[in-house]
Amino acid sequence: MEIAAATTQKTGHHRNTKAMIERAAPNFDLSFRAGIMGLSARSLERRLVEIVDGAGSRKVVDFVRCSYLGLDNHPHLIAGAIEALSSYGSLHWSCARTRLNFALLGELEEELSDLFASRVVTYSTVLAANMSALPLLASGHLTGGEKPLVVFDRFAHATLAAHKATLAAETAVATIAHNDVAALEDICRSNRSVVYICDGLYSMGGAAPMTALLQLQERHGLFLYIDDAHGVSLFGKNGEGYARSHIGQPLGDRTIIAASLGKGFGASGGLLMVGNEAQERLLRRFSLAQAFSVPVNLAGVGAALASAKLHRTPELQNLQSALRERTEEVDRLFPTSYAGQPFPIRTIEMGDEQTAIEAARTLLEAGFYTSAVFFPTVAQGRAALRICPTATHSRAEIEALANAFAPIRSKIRK
Amino acid sequence: MEIAAATTQKTGHHRNTKAMIERAAPNFDLSFRAGIMGLSARSLERRLVEIVDGAGSRKVVDFVRCSYLGLDNHPHLIAGAIEALSSYGSLHWSCARTRLNFALLGELEEELSDLFASRVVTYSTVLAANMSALPLLASGHLTGGEKPLVVFDRFAHATLAAHKATLAAETAVATIAHNDVAALEDICRSNRSVVYICDGLYSMGGAAPMTALLQLQERHGLFLYIDDAHGVSLFGKNGEGYARSHIGQPLGDRTIIAASLGKGFGASGGLLMVGNEAQERLLRRFSLAQAFSVPVNLAGVGAALASAKLHRTPELQNLQSALRERTEEVDRLFPTSYAGQPFPIRTIEMGDEQTAIEAARTLLEAGFYTSAVFFPTVAQGRAALRICPTATHSRAEIEALANAFAPIRSKIRK
Repeated sequence: MEIAAATTQKTGHHRNTKAMIERAAPNFDLSFRAGIMGLSARSLERRLVEIVDGAGSRKVVDFVRCSYLGLDNHPHLIAGAIEALSSYGSLHWSCARTRLNFALLGELEEELSDLFASRVVTYSTVLAANMSALPLLASGHLTGGEKPLVVFDRFAHATLAAHKATLAAETAVATIAHNDVAALEDICRSNRSVVYICDGLYSMGGAAPMTALLQLQERHGLFLYIDDAHGVSLFGKNGEGYARSHIGQPLGDRTIIAASLGKGFGASGGLLMVGNEAQERLLRRFSLAQAFSVPVNLAGVGAALASAKLHRTPELQNLQSALRERTEEVDRLFPTSYAGQPFPIRTIEMGDEQTAIEAARTLLEAGFYTSAVFFPTVAQGRAALRICPTATHSRAEIEALANAFAPIRSKIRK
Repeated sequence: MEIAAATTQKTGHHRNTKAMIERAAPNFDLSFRAGIMGLSARSLERRLVEIVDGAGSRKVVDFVRCSYLGLDNHPHLIAGAIEALSSYGSLHWSCARTRLNFALLGELEEELSDLFASRVVTYSTVLAANMSALPLLASGHLTGGEKPLVVFDRFAHATLAAHKATLAAETAVATIAHNDVAALEDICRSNRSVVYICDGLYSMGGAAPMTALLQLQERHGLFLYIDDAHGVSLFGKNGEGYARSHIGQPLGDRTIIAASLGKGFGASGGLLMVGNEAQERLLRRFSLAQAFSVPVNLAGVGAALASAKLHRTPELQNLQSALRERTEEVDRLFPTSYAGQPFPIRTIEMGDEQTAIEAARTLLEAGFYTSAVFFPTVAQGRAALRICPTATHSRAEIEALANAFAPIRSKIRK
């Protein structure tokens, strides 16, 4: 197998958690002291939360949670969770999925398979789904028996990138620049079997270039593994997500999509969408989490079934539209490089970590919870404020956030 | 750093998922055809489940689930889960724990910290807890700034062993024979900083030699990371588990214990027990799952709070005693090399994979669900039948299982 040398680390993947911690620790200290991290709260209506700390409690509007359609408070989902618990008299079985499963989980997987026009296998979290799928990809059993060159997008989510050294112990692994389709095509030209690992929507903004990636698949047989945790429910008639809605039917034999049952979907858990029976069988027998861990608990299953039902109603399209309107409102008030994109994650670059942390602190004091993001989530010196609008924020709340942000903006410009 | 050469793979950890799948696939095919894997069921009272398949439904007595105290059906736990959902009107927030947490999760962690006399940080699963802790151990930040030699017991659980290549990209990694205290002491003598990774109770039977390990800690400063998923709740006045109950108070600065909130505990989720504030802070800021994944959902939190409360009542000791009696009953009827041990996992060696699968099939037909275990869970040619007695099996059920097993036993002896 020939590998584009410039992009590949042939000697395994050196990691340096020690240095990462040393570099990041001062900003974590600052954030915790500023009271913007590790908060405890109770849910209130819509995006309001009641933050509970030593100083008592106060209501704030939350722009941190990724419940883009506001479903995490939806009464149907909570009722679905409670109904499942009452009906089974159980919450959780400590048992590998290769052994004994709640029948209701089987019903959920059938329902999701139909909803997303693919074969769906669920997991406790997207973390568990990614950890389970990646070694199987490296084994070659998903690429016709030939071990692939596994290429990561440099911005692929931490729960994907964490496994680079594990995969490098099985096959060749490379990392390319973010959304660098030209580099990926070069690699496809010089390697027979290539798997590309990327996000659908990136957690810090932007998205995978789906059309270009599908062209590479068509031309070169590229295998795509797309973590669409942030894209599910937000796109597609059935809420099949950003990645799946770009692909016709059937899903085909060279694409796996990971998605969340939390986030847009509003319940809890993760899933993988695959295109054929052999792939599904491989996941069900040899995924680490299927054989040696547990599925999402029954409350998650019940809530997900209720959410799946809701995905079949016009409420889904209404919420998708509302989200798009709120995102446009954010774009109008907070110009960023992502303006105009139909994805609901907006990061306002601050540069300096202290500035971002201070901005989040000021906004929280004014009643708005936002995320100060900094290394290792983004590169050093590229700290930002991350805002996630949702379908159930009001226009007035977004305007009020912008008003509270105005004095901060003038500080950045200095 | 000098390393005992015989035990260490200096060139990184080669993995071969491809070969593992090829070797294991025929036995999975056989097991699924025999109808003993991937079953769907509903909970009934105690250890009865109603298996649902194409052929209709039938009641069987389950010996597969690891709910050793029978708490996974306990009405208080289910009520606790439902109460949490009703009170918060939420099941799950899609949000890193470094950002926003359900206040009830904070209450649970305080309660568990008190119950287990340590600082407890919870995770969605033990898989997520292990994945989060191991790179921090490799970084040296838990061993006084010095990167340790990380030594695995050869039988350490798959969710630990899966990370060997990841750790080898950070520091030296070695694997020693099961419970080989002498080899471990040799390594401690020739290396300044050593971390030992092992299970508390092993999922296929037996346990870590806690007394000997604590002696090595005393003599050589050995750092212990013990996955006590199967031992929690079963041992100790407060159900603090096999590993924790061997250690006095305080836990100290050189031991981390992972445990399950499922299994004996009966709820859902995982946790880490650590001994000091600096360790807790490191986990809360830099664990992969804290920063880039989600906690157990609120139903799990509510059930765990109810279970913690139950752990403070005499019901815990009653269930622990009942489990010990049932385990003795199994030992009387199924002699194994584990006879007399106070741990509830019994594996009856069959050798040949087909024999184990056929035995599980015969027992299931007779109304008893047991696990046929084979490669990669155990070595090739060392297939076994695994039986997990629990506090809520009746003596009559265990006797009936033994009667159904009698004709199988005579076959093995041929």
